[in-house]
Amino acid sequence: MVKDNIKRISEEDFKAFDDRKRVKVINSLSGFKSANLIGTINNQGQTNLSVVSSVVHLGASPALIGMVIRPDVSRRDTLNNIRENGEFTINHINEEIVEKAHQTSARYPQDVSEFNACKLTEEIKDNFKAPFVAESKIKFSVKFVREIKIEENGTHFIIGEIKNVYLPESCICDDGHIDIHLAQTVCVSGLDSYSKPKHIGRLSYAKPDKALHWIK
Amino acid sequence: MVKDNIKRISEEDFKAFDDRKRVKVINSLSGFKSANLIGTINNQGQTNLSVVSSVVHLGASPALIGMVIRPDVSRRDTLNNIRENGEFTINHINEEIVEKAHQTSARYPQDVSEFNACKLTEEIKDNFKAPFVAESKIKFSVKFVREIKIEENGTHFIIGEIKNVYLPESCICDDGHIDIHLAQTVCVSGLDSYSKPKHIGRLSYAKPDKALHWIK
Repeated sequence: MVKDNIKRISEEDFKAFDDRKRVKVINSLSGFKSANLIGTINNQGQTNLSVVSSVVHLGASPALIGMVIRPDVSRRDTLNNIRENGEFTINHINEEIVEKAHQTSARYPQDVSEFNACKLTEEIKDNFKAPFVAESKIKFSVKFVREIKIEENGTHFIIGEIKNVYLPESCICDDGHIDIHLAQTVCVSGLDSYSKPKHIGRLSYAKPDKALHWIK
Repeated sequence: MVKDNIKRISEEDFKAFDDRKRVKVINSLSGFKSANLIGTINNQGQTNLSVVSSVVHLGASPALIGMVIRPDVSRRDTLNNIRENGEFTINHINEEIVEKAHQTSARYPQDVSEFNACKLTEEIKDNFKAPFVAESKIKFSVKFVREIKIEENGTHFIIGEIKNVYLPESCICDDGHIDIHLAQTVCVSGLDSYSKPKHIGRLSYAKPDKALHWIK
């Protein structure tokens, strides 16, 4: 491999980029991101589905998840629906539905459900109002806890509590770890780049003065 | 492929799990997570390095990043150092340093730097106080903006502003997208499972009534 030149992009550089380029650069920096579809419904029964790459683990007791939703300067059906009835579903995007999932990011009119427009199937489970994505293999219902406004840029950090989890039995390891590769879960980088992770392995619990080993 | 049984894990189920199992289940649910090393230094010049899987993109203008740090019920050097001098570095974990990066999660005494203990190299760039990881190929300096206490479980959501970015020139696409596969960046699932994403492709900007295409 030839030695690669290291480039520095300074704060001044990316402030000088046009908006599109800056968005692409900055969106790529965090590393690989989770790729999920958020299912919601409003009080008139209109469903909505949106691709979100910012779902993040917050804690296990209580079981909390966070996600970042962009500023509500224009219509934000997902945010409005969550505020309206306090429920949403999180559905892993798998390899088979990458294109349909990405298509949910198009700006459809409010009275069009992305489920229909993008040919994904609504699924109701255990009387939860918000719809799941039938084609998704790992999915869970979430009760809205609260939102935090990020004043610096108008985004919203949504906190939710995990309720019921649905997944293929074969993905669950004996110790509780869920092997999400077996559900063909993908990840995303930047705005539009999708990847399928290839498992390297699981590492043992790290302790000072003890060598790590690959546990499976 | 044989049809897999779908298992439901209810809220009551995971509340009944022992702590270790619950932590593993819940940590696996968000999907694949970014894998980064956070470099910090305290005012006495003691450096610290910790593996973090919760770095999330917050916005491009200003260029903001968020990350979740666990409750400070026990010593949290990373959090303390960030509070003390307001700087940290984010360094992508690549395939070559996965084991060393994971080892930084061991509980070393405060006067031991994980850089030394885990055989990773401190690198100072452009007079930034917090150290970078020399072995990391994509890395950037971050100024602490503020922290939000997540009262529900005592975690801290750290907001930082991105300053200088350093990366191999070959990773930068013409439109600004950064191809982090070329830097061998990995991702993580659950507490201890590392993977190397294999690129599927980039999808075009989604519009209603327009078919998507793979752009490269």
